[in-house]
Amino acid sequence: MIVDLRSDTVTRPTPAMLEAMMSAPVGDDVFGEDPTVNKLEAMAASLFGMEAALYCPTGTMSNQVAIKVHTQPGDEVICDQTAHVYQYEGGGIAFNAGAQVRLLDGAYGRITAEQVLQAINPDDVHKARTSLVCLENTANRGGGSCYDLTAVEAIRQVCDEHGLQLHLDGARLFNALVARGESPRQHGALFHSISVCLNKGLGCPAGSILISRAAFIKKARRIRKVFGGGMRQAGYLAAAGIYALENQVDRLATDHQHARLLAAALAKAPFTARILPVETNIVIFEIKEGWQAAQLAARLKENNILAIAISPTQLRMVLHLDVTAAMVEYTVEVIEKIAGS
Amino acid sequence: MIVDLRSDTVTRPTPAMLEAMMSAPVGDDVFGEDPTVNKLEAMAASLFGMEAALYCPTGTMSNQVAIKVHTQPGDEVICDQTAHVYQYEGGGIAFNAGAQVRLLDGAYGRITAEQVLQAINPDDVHKARTSLVCLENTANRGGGSCYDLTAVEAIRQVCDEHGLQLHLDGARLFNALVARGESPRQHGALFHSISVCLNKGLGCPAGSILISRAAFIKKARRIRKVFGGGMRQAGYLAAAGIYALENQVDRLATDHQHARLLAAALAKAPFTARILPVETNIVIFEIKEGWQAAQLAARLKENNILAIAISPTQLRMVLHLDVTAAMVEYTVEVIEKIAGS
Amino acid sequence: MIVDLRSDTVTRPTPAMLEAMMSAPVGDDVFGEDPTVNKLEAMAASLFGMEAALYCPTGTMSNQVAIKVHTQPGDEVICDQTAHVYQYEGGGIAFNAGAQVRLLDGAYGRITAEQVLQAINPDDVHKARTSLVCLENTANRGGGSCYDLTAVEAIRQVCDEHGLQLHLDGARLFNALVARGESPRQHGALFHSISVCLNKGLGCPAGSILISRAAFIKKARRIRKVFGGGMRQAGYLAAAGIYALENQVDRLATDHQHARLLAAALAKAPFTARILPVETNIVIFEIKEGWQAAQLAARLKENNILAIAISPTQLRMVLHLDVTAAMVEYTVEVIEKIAGS
Amino acid sequence: MIVDLRSDTVTRPTPAMLEAMMSAPVGDDVFGEDPTVNKLEAMAASLFGMEAALYCPTGTMSNQVAIKVHTQPGDEVICDQTAHVYQYEGGGIAFNAGAQVRLLDGAYGRITAEQVLQAINPDDVHKARTSLVCLENTANRGGGSCYDLTAVEAIRQVCDEHGLQLHLDGARLFNALVARGESPRQHGALFHSISVCLNKGLGCPAGSILISRAAFIKKARRIRKVFGGGMRQAGYLAAAGIYALENQVDRLATDHQHARLLAAALAKAPFTARILPVETNIVIFEIKEGWQAAQLAARLKENNILAIAISPTQLRMVLHLDVTAAMVEYTVEVIEKIAGS
Repeated sequence: MIVDLRSDTVTRPTPAMLEAMMSAPVGDDVFGEDPTVNKLEAMAASLFGMEAALYCPTGTMSNQVAIKVHTQPGDEVICDQTAHVYQYEGGGIAFNAGAQVRLLDGAYGRITAEQVLQAINPDDVHKARTSLVCLENTANRGGGSCYDLTAVEAIRQVCDEHGLQLHLDGARLFNALVARGESPRQHGALFHSISVCLNKGLGCPAGSILISRAAFIKKARRIRKVFGGGMRQAGYLAAAGIYALENQVDRLATDHQHARLLAAALAKAPFTARILPVETNIVIFEIKEGWQAAQLAARLKENNILAIAISPTQLRMVLHLDVTAAMVEYTVEVIEKIAGS
Repeated sequence: MIVDLRSDTVTRPTPAMLEAMMSAPVGDDVFGEDPTVNKLEAMAASLFGMEAALYCPTGTMSNQVAIKVHTQPGDEVICDQTAHVYQYEGGGIAFNAGAQVRLLDGAYGRITAEQVLQAINPDDVHKARTSLVCLENTANRGGGSCYDLTAVEAIRQVCDEHGLQLHLDGARLFNALVARGESPRQHGALFHSISVCLNKGLGCPAGSILISRAAFIKKARRIRKVFGGGMRQAGYLAAAGIYALENQVDRLATDHQHARLLAAALAKAPFTARILPVETNIVIFEIKEGWQAAQLAARLKENNILAIAISPTQLRMVLHLDVTAAMVEYTVEVIEKIAGS
Repeated sequence: MIVDLRSDTVTRPTPAMLEAMMSAPVGDDVFGEDPTVNKLEAMAASLFGMEAALYCPTGTMSNQVAIKVHTQPGDEVICDQTAHVYQYEGGGIAFNAGAQVRLLDGAYGRITAEQVLQAINPDDVHKARTSLVCLENTANRGGGSCYDLTAVEAIRQVCDEHGLQLHLDGARLFNALVARGESPRQHGALFHSISVCLNKGLGCPAGSILISRAAFIKKARRIRKVFGGGMRQAGYLAAAGIYALENQVDRLATDHQHARLLAAALAKAPFTARILPVETNIVIFEIKEGWQAAQLAARLKENNILAIAISPTQLRMVLHLDVTAAMVEYTVEVIEKIAGS
Repeated sequence: MIVDLRSDTVTRPTPAMLEAMMSAPVGDDVFGEDPTVNKLEAMAASLFGMEAALYCPTGTMSNQVAIKVHTQPGDEVICDQTAHVYQYEGGGIAFNAGAQVRLLDGAYGRITAEQVLQAINPDDVHKARTSLVCLENTANRGGGSCYDLTAVEAIRQVCDEHGLQLHLDGARLFNALVARGESPRQHGALFHSISVCLNKGLGCPAGSILISRAAFIKKARRIRKVFGGGMRQAGYLAAAGIYALENQVDRLATDHQHARLLAAALAKAPFTARILPVETNIVIFEIKEGWQAAQLAARLKENNILAIAISPTQLRMVLHLDVTAAMVEYTVEVIEKIAGS
């Protein structure tokens, strides 16, 4: 048995999801004729109370398409310095959109309306034109932290007052919704566009959905094409998305509970300096001096537990569909064993 | 019964392909851990006698990634004026690579070594730097025409003499291989990179493979990521590719025979001005004055036959896996009926 | 004595122009405080009956700034295949704007409304979005040919009907105005933006002016900055522009007369196959078989006459401020001498 | 009398510089035939002990050309968070080069080798490829602070060990050289490319010079062209550069002395919270609570002294060629007057 806590991207479809995939009616989505893709897009738009949606192969593409549609080359995008769109998308904001970033020093990956306000550039030819704010909820590098809706509302107000667009990288949005008891519609009302990853907590093999106004999605469809993201019979993958939205949202609460169990075990371990607040399915903890993240990861691996050293002093464990209660129990035991050794 | 001759992109997997997909072992391809993707990449590289390969969601992405890796912004790409990379990829050469095109007036989509030679820019700051030649085999807008290998060899020689890279958009390369009795290795030896579409004649629901040297594929993997083309459990789609390469290549000959049957019927019809030479699975014919392509397409559609008017005076019919002999026979009858009316 | 007919870019300021330059009041133009730049910009806008203008270091920058403001990455720009913006600006349409070209086969560099209409792409994700038409007047590679205003009006009508912008590369616009007896305002009424080169026929050491609506120029100022075209005390150069507009426009008629004299001599020469119609200050002629352009250029050079072989079979001679009547007479003699040898 | 301390970009040429400009031999620099430009480029290359140089209209263009030549789209550029290339060049790193930034929190605009080392991305498709480090010397927003050569040597070593290029934005490099008693050659030996602004302390109306290896400058010349920076008779401006390098370097010491006089006066003023260390010709000071930078700037302006509030709590005064000893004395008096009021 391998306990793979490296990421919630490693999940494999359940038999029921696979059955849904393989029995999906499909068509040529570039002609707009894949009924399963069309169903997923309509379903996502409706769920968030927005006009339209676009299926993309990956969450990175959803984000990059959105950023490109929202900006012009030479614009500036405001985000937290740990944001996935800046840190882990291959320099795509610059590569794909020709835009530069204004990085804020948020709390656990969350930025504030006041920080956004201070970061808006004046109308001056020397300065890049501020046009977009990107939030990430939950914030991966913030340890799966969640935004308060009131904080988002305040940011949206600043955006409205200064003509900025507001995009949500909702790679793990459903984790936030479940943890906070919020609805997709509450978020749909606050953002100009939302990308949701179907691959991570929701357990699909691939895929992401970008949701916005109809005019925005029309432009987005064009950008998806130029990136080469317009697949033909994409319905097999989209079917997994439909299945996940219908069947695998509520169970995220289990991942969150598992995360708290791991955190509790880690809190007692002598190598743990600090655990980032555990709000959803991610546990990030800092290692005390005298220990090294890579070494600890190696010790875990000897016990068939995989976790990523995200910095020389930080380890990350991510809970997901393929991590059972038994695996969590076993991981707790291994932590205690290493702690006691 | 609908006879869909609009494109060979509309095929649905056979039950056997679907079974292969469903039972594929998968993993996280972004971590390089999807065994089915790895198998397909190794298989494709070996088939073409090249070092490495990269699975992409679409043929457009394979081409765009290759063009980006081969060029720098401000470079010039030589291709036929009907080339898919210029005509149907959303302006991607400029959008993704910042490169401009030098368009040649080829014969049925095929350009010559002499044309390439004449088109190379001098080393002058006014002129874009010529760095890449793109061929398309078969040439879609050339009516599925095939290159002679000797013509490609001559182009490669010009490329070598002038420090140019040579990319093959092999969206329908296997149609050419079957029609000409050539091997993948003969092509692998002539190009710096080759993209092959698994979706068209090969009948996969999606997917494409880019093949080249290992160092090139390493760079390509980075570009695929920044476009958002790095899917996680891509093995389900890759399995279809493996199945197709193993089982659905030889049957392309049937599509070619079907194309000739349609061409023969069209040749007798009073509305046909000219048929482009039928070499593979595409039939493009020009309409005589007094007829209109859109009208003829409408007449066909009344008879449940779908074909695309690719210009006001040209119709295109594409044969593929989902067009049976009975459908071809029926289409011949309908053509005769319209011709006689 | 060297007769430099390579280009009208080689002129040196007259003593009076130099005096105007060196006595110009200047300030920091990036702060908007250079009175001479401000005067030139206001003068140019007024001359063309447009709202605002922007001084740029070169005509290439004026064109590139305009193309960037008019387009988005992935757009398509329609122009003649010989257009300077495509042929001689280093691939800038793709490099700077991420846009691709649709090249038309015009007559002496002039395209028609009907050609433009046929070239507009449908609203389809496969196709780049057509957004801009660029004309060049006079057309350099067309032998200094001039547009009929009625032809431009027809093109503008197509643009209006299809939501396209219309830019004029007026590098030698004043040659056309003088040759045709047209006014700047007639052109200002037909284009969304006009770039005028102050360096060529007008005889300034450098500089260009971009003219359009105020909102466009505001955006253009931002693009000029990001290219690094915002000079500080640019008034020294701008003063040359003011001087030229006030004193060196009417004399272009002399260059045109000189061009006709050279053409008359070339028409009689045995090496001349064909002379492009001479409408302004450029003479392009084709060489008969048995002669080579480069050889003929060498023969001229032996006689201290410089001309450029713009292709293996074409020579170009450009008249300008620094080519006197005596030099033209001498050149005619040399042509006759070579012709008789 | 106006004392303009807003920037050292506001200077006007001295009569002697204007005389040098007016009498400069010129030619068509795009043909490589402007003797004055050629002389300046050779002079600058020699001064820094490097192979070649390129004259550009502005320092922004020099920097942007260098960044573009050093990087590929999707690369990451390491610089201080206050760097001019990031803050004041219109988002050019992203717009022109498609590269993203990694911002470091330096001391007075100076970053360290250790910071650079920590900021280099691993070889991972998720991460932008680190390829370039940009330093700024003196650092404008650091109050005109200077790098220690040993600190630069350490950074260069990190660059060498990790295959990074090292560019110097030397907009005010001669201020650093004079203040530190260093030679251009010492810097030429440490950087892969250096841009020097001729406009600021050196007092030219415009212009900048980019210095590097010959192969680099060849590429740079191409990029300058595509930006539209290739002026024709640029010799008039280049002559000012030659004059400045020969006559106006040593006098920078006077500006530095003036800066110290102003700092001494400000240090005694009740509104001054903190003055950034004054090393060269820039004085940046923070305002105490209860005062506002904009208000203080307004008070100075009432007394004909211009200074820029670079943030709500910071004022900047820049000394230069056009600020005489008498003006400095007067400014000290005004500061004392405001302080005492």
